This record gives sequence, C-alpha cells and structure tokens, in this order.
Amino acid sequence: MPEQLFSYQQLAEFTKTIFLKIGCSTEHANTATKALLSADLRGVDSHGVARLSGYVRLWEARRVNATPVIKVIHETPSTAVVDGDSGLGLVVAPFAMQIAIEKAKQVGTGWVSVQNSNHFGIAAHHAMMALENDMIGIAMTNASSLVAPTFSIDKMLGTNPICVAAPAGTEPAFVADLATTTAANGKLEILQRKNMQTPTGWVQDKDGNASNDPHALKTGGALLPLGGDKDHGSHKGYALGAVVDIFSALLSGANYAPWVPPFPAYVPMPAQQPGKGIGHFLGAMRIDAFRPADEFKKSMDHWIQGFRNAKTVAGEEKVLVPGDPEREFERERMKDGIPLLKQVVDDLQSLSEKFQIASL
Amino acid sequence: MPEQLFSYQQLAEFTKTIFLKIGCSTEHANTATKALLSADLRGVDSHGVARLSGYVRLWEARRVNATPVIKVIHETPSTAVVDGDSGLGLVVAPFAMQIAIEKAKQVGTGWVSVQNSNHFGIAAHHAMMALENDMIGIAMTNASSLVAPTFSIDKMLGTNPICVAAPAGTEPAFVADLATTTAANGKLEILQRKNMQTPTGWVQDKDGNASNDPHALKTGGALLPLGGDKDHGSHKGYALGAVVDIFSALLSGANYAPWVPPFPAYVPMPAQQPGKGIGHFLGAMRIDAFRPADEFKKSMDHWIQGFRNAKTVAGEEKVLVPGDPEREFERERMKDGIPLLKQVVDDLQSLSEKFQIASL
Repeated sequence: MPEQLFSYQQLAEFTKTIFLKIGCSTEHANTATKALLSADLRGVDSHGVARLSGYVRLWEARRVNATPVIKVIHETPSTAVVDGDSGLGLVVAPFAMQIAIEKAKQVGTGWVSVQNSNHFGIAAHHAMMALENDMIGIAMTNASSLVAPTFSIDKMLGTNPICVAAPAGTEPAFVADLATTTAANGKLEILQRKNMQTPTGWVQDKDGNASNDPHALKTGGALLPLGGDKDHGSHKGYALGAVVDIFSALLSGANYAPWVPPFPAYVPMPAQQPGKGIGHFLGAMRIDAFRPADEFKKSMDHWIQGFRNAKTVAGEEKVLVPGDPEREFERERMKDGIPLLKQVVDDLQSLSEKFQIASL
Repeated sequence: MPEQLFSYQQLAEFTKTIFLKIGCSTEHANTATKALLSADLRGVDSHGVARLSGYVRLWEARRVNATPVIKVIHETPSTAVVDGDSGLGLVVAPFAMQIAIEKAKQVGTGWVSVQNSNHFGIAAHHAMMALENDMIGIAMTNASSLVAPTFSIDKMLGTNPICVAAPAGTEPAFVADLATTTAANGKLEILQRKNMQTPTGWVQDKDGNASNDPHALKTGGALLPLGGDKDHGSHKGYALGAVVDIFSALLSGANYAPWVPPFPAYVPMPAQQPGKGIGHFLGAMRIDAFRPADEFKKSMDHWIQGFRNAKTVAGEEKVLVPGDPEREFERERMKDGIPLLKQVVDDLQSLSEKFQIASL
C-alpha cells in the first residue's frame, strides 16, 4: 500500500484551512484541528485527517453547524449538561471537558454530559486535557449503531469508547482508550486492504453467525462487543458499551442505541429519533481532592514500573502500559512525519480543489 | 452435586449470628449480612455465604477488624477518602457509598475512594444503594492478583469488578456488574466440579501459554483479562482492570497491583506492601443534576424495551438487559429458597460448632 509522509505542521495547516473554509471561527478551527490530528499522531489513523472529508460532507448535509453556540443548559456544582448546537464534536467535547475541569477545581470533580453534538475524534485527546491540571480525565462518546449485543442480530450500540487518563510522576501518563468492542472498524479496514480474514469474535454475519469476513458490516453483519461471544464474556463488553450510552445520551438528552446519527452523510438519519445529535460524557477528578498529587504520582510511577518489569510470555519483549503504543507513535510521527495512504491523500486533494486552496 | 435449600431468612439469621459472634456491633452485623447474602440472592454463589468461613478465618488471622472505626480522612464537596480501619468490606463499602450519596445530594455527584478495607462481596449491592435515591451508582474494588496482563506471565491485577446501576421507570433498573476478566474464579470452580475444560481465553498456564485447565491457577497459571488474548482485545480488559486499581487504591492509598492482600487467610501477605488493605471506589450521580429524573427514567424504559425487543440469533429467546439474570435469580430464590452445595452446608455447620450456635 503506497504511503506518503507529511509533517504534522503541513497537515495541521491544511486541516485548519478547511475548517475555516466551512465557516468555523479561528478559535474553533484551531481546536478542531488539534483534536483531529491527535488521532494521526497517536496512530489511530481511522480517526484523523482520513475523516476530514467526512466532516465536510456532514457540514454540506447541514448535519454539522460550523458556527455553533455551545451552551450549558443545566448545572450543579459538580455537573453540567452541554448543548453542542450541532457543532463539530471536535470543538464541543473540549468545551465540555474544560467545564468538567473548572468544576473539579471548585468542588473536586466535574462531570459533563453532552447532547446535540457530532463525532468527537479520539476520546484520549479530551481525557488528556485533565492531565496538565493534575487531574484524572475521563471521556466517552456514543456512536452510530454497528454493534450487536449478546444474542442479538440487530445492531443496537456504537463502538462506544471509554478513555481514562491518569498523571504519573517521572513516568509518562497512563492513558487507556478503548472501544467497547473486540475490534473497532479501523482494524477491519486494515484487514480489508490486506485481503485477510478477521479472527473469530470480531464480527458476526447478518443472521448472527460467527464470521471471519472483514466486509461483514457491508452485508448486514455486525461488530461484536468486547469478549466476542457469551462464553468469552461478550455480555460484559455489551454492558460497558451500554454504560457509555447511558452516561453520554440518557443523561444529556442525546440520541441513543440505534437512533444515534451515522457518520457518513449519505446514510439517512434513523427515523423517530428520541434525542438531539450524538452524546458524550466528560469527567475530571482532581487528584488532590483525594490525596496529595505528588504521593499519587509516586505511586503511579511504582505501579507503572511494576507492570513494565513483569515477566513476559515467550516471544514478547515487554508488558505494555496503556498509552505506551500511542506515545511511541506520537514520538515517531512528530519526528519523521505522518504517513497517509494514497486514498487519503487523494481525498484531501479533492478537498483542496473543492475549496480552491493549495494542495498538500 | 447434592444441594439443599434454605430460606433467605434462615441464612440471614445464621450469618448475622456469626458476625455478632466475631464481635461485630448489631448494626455492622446487619449491614454485613445484607451485603453478603445479596450475592446468594442474585445467583453469585461464589461471593455469598460460601465465603462466610473465609471472613471468619481472616478475623482469626487478625486481618479483619470486627470493630472498626471507619473514618473520612480527606474530603472536598464531591469527594472523600475513607479509611476502613481493616473492617469487613461488607461494612466499609456501604459506609463509603452512603457518603457518596450524601455528597451527590449536596453537589450533584459524590466519589469515595477507600483504603484499609477487605473483600466487599458483590459490587452490585453497593452500587444499587444509589437507585432508591434516583441516582446512578458505581462500585469497584481491587482484589488479590490472579490476572496476567497481556503479554505477562506475572499475575499483576485482581479480577477487579466494575458495577454501574441506573434507575429506570416502569422497567427494573439497569445493573451491569462485571469482573474485568473473561471469566471470574467462580466460573472456574463450576467447571472443576463438573470435570470440564474451560473455553480458550479464560486462563493461561504458568508459562503464559493458552490453557483449558480449570485448575490452571493452582499450578502457577493465571486468569486472563476480558478479551483473552491480544487479538481479541485482552489489552482492553487489562486496561479496565488497571483503571479499577487506580481509582480504588492509587487514589486512596490502599495496596495495588500484586500487593493486594489475598482473601484466603492461609496465603501469606505480599512483602513490602505499598499501602493499606484493599481499596474500593464508590460513586453516586444524582440524575436530576443532569436532567429531570422522570425524563431520564422514561428514556431508560424506552432504551431497555428497545434491547428486549431486538431480533435474536437462532436458538436464543431474548436479548437480555444487564441485571436481568440476577433479578430473576433473586425472584426465584426469595420464593423457593437458596440452594447450597453440600460442601458449603458442611462449612457452615463447622462454623456453628466453632461458635456453639444452633446449626442451620
């Protein structure tokens, strides 16, 4: 698969220009660019600039409002509900996370449920905003329904990711960012390109039978919750995805379950939607609301070193700590550039033509 | 396997008498009995009266303090750290959960991290305390290390369960209570008794190879994180177990990772423990800190009914909602009694002899 390398700066300038072209304010364009490109830096290629044209198409379809008035519509000292005014999730989620952080400064923790938003990129970007404030950050979002609960043929949940980021001292932060499915869509796309089968437990076919076809979603199949099947705990992955839906949408008044708006603008909106847009949930816990931050960080260092030094199974070099692989990607890509597949470069090229801006 | 039926009332009276005999106050004995037996009612047989003699042995070994002075040692409007004074987790966790609930009444949410505690029974019992207050309840605990992270031979985490309970309207509450492993120890014990193999992905042997031996833990093997192996997302189960450890112990100052005290009193304490006792994390979120409770509950009913009515795969009658199986157990067992295996009955019989009380 031919790939081309671009510097972070190149991609950031291009992306920001596109967001400005659809009408975002400079502030929003900066925020959205930073959120979107954090995915490319961290190696989550499915959620970065590869999606830029998808966001543009949502704007063209009037499903994304480029000039949202994002508002707190209800609050208590430790909670808020935010109405994203159909804005880019890339802008709405950082707004909501900032409120969570401010509340944590005041009363120890802050928890914000968001309605009327759109796809927010990677959860880690938002959760990690807490780190520089010596807080634990939490970010979740629901998403359009691609996942069949245990025993179900119907797709009832999205890949509904959960991220938890916790600061350490001399060690880098702990950052766990995971879809509540065995594998997310991005991994299927990699297998599709390589013409390979999926392991059992990733997808089922349209009748709910186990399948190894990475194209299963295109023929009525579904992604499976983390665990894969009942014997392997899929009811747990399903339960976790459900919790994300409840926190993100039932608490905020966003759409939930199979009614969450799809990302591709050509897919019609589900009928009889019970809420507004998609939902997120952001949380921040101030470490010293529990314990002096330096004590906590010292314990985190000890914890992390314990895992790094655990004895590995044959053939593996190291036990990883959540966040290690993504941080390694970020280091490499900041230095050497971000590789984009030809089809992504072509896609960005057509954006530059559409908006008559310099190509990458 | 011969089983004998006992009424809830019979088991509760017996259990309470034992807790009184080891020196608990009447209030603590009542609280502990209710927490312990909630496991038997909900069908989690591994966590109920089957463990009563285990708690007694911990008391005999002076690892459990029957007359703890449970204290808040740090707090903010939305957070607290509780020192359980080596008390029964069955008593310490409800104390901490009550504080979370009171804080949620005041500022919208309450979050309590607990140090210096012991095994707390099932997480659902504590999380569900929030329901009658129209709150979402969250309960987690760490536990002694039986679980090998992805790529590790060393056992670094406990089965570290997470429970989230959310109220509904006409439908029963949503209650997700899950160990962050593919399968918890209780399921291995069932297979041991039946002389059956485990599915692949539950355990590994002492060298980290895939195993199907339900006795693998006795020969140096380990439980596996939810997902089973890397291809099936075990790094996600590992990350979730790690989050439970961080919230329960790193935030509170309890022991973490391989240093968590073991439940069996004959297993020596890990050397160089970095904290105090085991750790829990309890949370409560007031629904109307986000949205009017009746609106939320109406949405929950709609959500639940959507899942119940999803099309099932061949051979399955119904898509279940988290909490359904346990509630069905509770209904049946309140009516027909709680079945105990002969070995559990014998175990309770020796307790009655030890404390010279009437046998069951």
